[in-house]
Amino acid sequence: MVVGAGFGGLNTVRGLVGSGAEVTIVDRDNYHGFWPLLYQVATAGLSPEDIAYPIRAIFSGNPQVTVRHAVVTGLDLEARKVRLDRGEDLAYEYLVLATGSSTADFGIAGVAEHAFPLKTLRDALRLRNHVLRAFEEADGEPPGSDGLLTVLLVGGGPTGVELAGALAELIGTNLAADFPHLDVSRARVLLLEATDHVLGGFSTKSQQEALRALSARGVEVRLGAKLAEVTPDGVRLSDGSEIPARTVVWTAGVRANPLGELVPGAKAPNGAVPVSSDLSLPEHPEVFVIGDLAAVTDKRGRPLPQLAQVAIQGGKHTARTIRHRLAGEPSTAFRYHNHGIMATIGRGSAVAELPGGFKLQGTVGWLSWLVVHLVFLIGFRNRVLVLVNWAWNYVTFDRASRVILDDVGPAPADPLTPRPSGPSLGQAL
Amino acid sequence: MVVGAGFGGLNTVRGLVGSGAEVTIVDRDNYHGFWPLLYQVATAGLSPEDIAYPIRAIFSGNPQVTVRHAVVTGLDLEARKVRLDRGEDLAYEYLVLATGSSTADFGIAGVAEHAFPLKTLRDALRLRNHVLRAFEEADGEPPGSDGLLTVLLVGGGPTGVELAGALAELIGTNLAADFPHLDVSRARVLLLEATDHVLGGFSTKSQQEALRALSARGVEVRLGAKLAEVTPDGVRLSDGSEIPARTVVWTAGVRANPLGELVPGAKAPNGAVPVSSDLSLPEHPEVFVIGDLAAVTDKRGRPLPQLAQVAIQGGKHTARTIRHRLAGEPSTAFRYHNHGIMATIGRGSAVAELPGGFKLQGTVGWLSWLVVHLVFLIGFRNRVLVLVNWAWNYVTFDRASRVILDDVGPAPADPLTPRPSGPSLGQAL
Repeated sequence: MVVGAGFGGLNTVRGLVGSGAEVTIVDRDNYHGFWPLLYQVATAGLSPEDIAYPIRAIFSGNPQVTVRHAVVTGLDLEARKVRLDRGEDLAYEYLVLATGSSTADFGIAGVAEHAFPLKTLRDALRLRNHVLRAFEEADGEPPGSDGLLTVLLVGGGPTGVELAGALAELIGTNLAADFPHLDVSRARVLLLEATDHVLGGFSTKSQQEALRALSARGVEVRLGAKLAEVTPDGVRLSDGSEIPARTVVWTAGVRANPLGELVPGAKAPNGAVPVSSDLSLPEHPEVFVIGDLAAVTDKRGRPLPQLAQVAIQGGKHTARTIRHRLAGEPSTAFRYHNHGIMATIGRGSAVAELPGGFKLQGTVGWLSWLVVHLVFLIGFRNRVLVLVNWAWNYVTFDRASRVILDDVGPAPADPLTPRPSGPSLGQAL
Repeated sequence: MVVGAGFGGLNTVRGLVGSGAEVTIVDRDNYHGFWPLLYQVATAGLSPEDIAYPIRAIFSGNPQVTVRHAVVTGLDLEARKVRLDRGEDLAYEYLVLATGSSTADFGIAGVAEHAFPLKTLRDALRLRNHVLRAFEEADGEPPGSDGLLTVLLVGGGPTGVELAGALAELIGTNLAADFPHLDVSRARVLLLEATDHVLGGFSTKSQQEALRALSARGVEVRLGAKLAEVTPDGVRLSDGSEIPARTVVWTAGVRANPLGELVPGAKAPNGAVPVSSDLSLPEHPEVFVIGDLAAVTDKRGRPLPQLAQVAIQGGKHTARTIRHRLAGEPSTAFRYHNHGIMATIGRGSAVAELPGGFKLQGTVGWLSWLVVHLVFLIGFRNRVLVLVNWAWNYVTFDRASRVILDDVGPAPADPLTPRPSGPSLGQAL
């Protein structure tokens, strides 16, 4: 049984197809989300459906695979049972936990209440609606100093950098044309980062290229800026200064999904579950933890990054391990192969660092970013749609998904629906 | 000033571009919705963004046109002012009211509380989420007689017929493959119609062809079935019989948008506003009412149907009339030119009736339906995306948008957001 249909869970199930094993995959959503492109949904470049693929469609016509649209509310590792929110108890022989990470606010006041996270499709649509609505509200009103048109992003990691670049392009190109009677130069995109560099984990050269590309797009980057509090009207920094901002986006922190709390034993500081070298639990070798939910270190003892590739490779390895176990063979240690890291700053600009010290940037980096993301995007139709959208956006500078569409409910009374900004159990990836 | 960015309002503004007149267009949504394809969003064949085009993008770079994302809450025809929900009063020289129609429950108990309307993108997404969720809920549960997998549609007009056909295909093809452990033959699609025919307004031949095509897709059509009440568990008919159904869709009734109530004077029985031959108000020749909101009759005194073509032609005519008035020329009477009517029942099946008695059905009718809808769909990108989706769906039988995505909020406290199933002021088209 596999919990979570993100990169890790999907690759586990795929690796088990044809093994003869009956596989059940559980996820709180009925789709697999391709989160590396989530920021493009938030900035009106893509539709939610472009990056969401129905889980059942992936395994359609395969009776070996059972899909459950449910939230895991309990684990009984001794009895080898998983409890679902609908009251169902499912027994398992092998269990793979792959629910990824959730937003963490590090205890900073106001983050949960006033900042927008960007971890789910709902988050992306809420952010899109909110930013577009702010421009509608500003149109026809006298200019104020209230930060109505300020989007402030906290966290200079890949999500913050990619979102900042895309927001600056959305505002500077599309919204400037949409609002001829509004002085769009009033709008600001600010990126706050607590350390002295963006894109931690990248080389200094890439970090500087990212800063240059952000600055060229009008993004104001503030390094060494430590957040003290998010308020309804903006943020307060640890030096006491305040920045008014109607929209505050929190991309600074993630921690392991709360499902990890249901696993007995000590956790890593970020909530991740410590595992043996084959990604199983030391006390329960029939239970595997992979992806962001697992605390795994590399040869030098450093924790593996929270990347899709770690989850994908962990899923494939776990499927192989289970096949070995079913055949009575010993399992092997998981070893992560670095395929490189990349981040895009906007139209025609990206940084990529490949194994062996190869670095790409600018247009070449951007094209390689496009190709890699298209190849990993699941489903031919989604690839075609994303390609059409990208080609359209590239040729016309348009972002046609800038529709405000909220209050899509009614919110069902069941716990399948996560509350805004509160992490909940069983959230995939 | 134009209120409503549906077919009527958009064509009015387009007709005034280049006239030198300053035009303001107000809509409660920030997009123009191509409602003839709404049922395909509800049945997971298209994304909302495929049929929604940002109003500002349509008039992008045209400083003659001002767009307001707002709800009209008051009209003062004497002072020639329109009040917006944000408190703003806008003065006008000419006013065009084009807010279309809203769902009407004809006083039948339970429709507003328990039935799904299909008039807006929110309606379509709610219905899509609800139907997909019912199948998820049924999976793994013992079969019951509670109508969990029954979708009951009330109203055999074009919307009911097209939705019934598409639902039957979604269930019989896609969901049957998605749920290999569920007996999908338990699912029912019922279409209730109070009269003795579907597609009122079409010829008997087309009506019979529609019945045949629906039946071939497994839709159970009940003619002469009069609804007495919608309950949380299904419906009760006037003969006392009950049909359990988890999903009840109401497509039986529309009436003029409540904005019409703000216009002084008597209304037609469906709430539409009576107008002079040039579509202006008899007492206020500077105010025009077009599309579904207007009570207009043809040469034989019969009311014009509630069709996109009536609104489109009304908008074009009104733009011409305003140009004439500005030039000091007399206005001419509006005359509706029937371009035909069509409805599709599903893959490879449609009925079309062209002027002069030409009738198409089957594959030819369906292909003509595809072409007409593509031509009228606004925006090249949307056309390409819809075409890709249709081609994909046709070749693979897939409907890739079957993602459950609800609770997209938070619901703003302002009145821009309509309540579920309650008609509200200023809703476009």
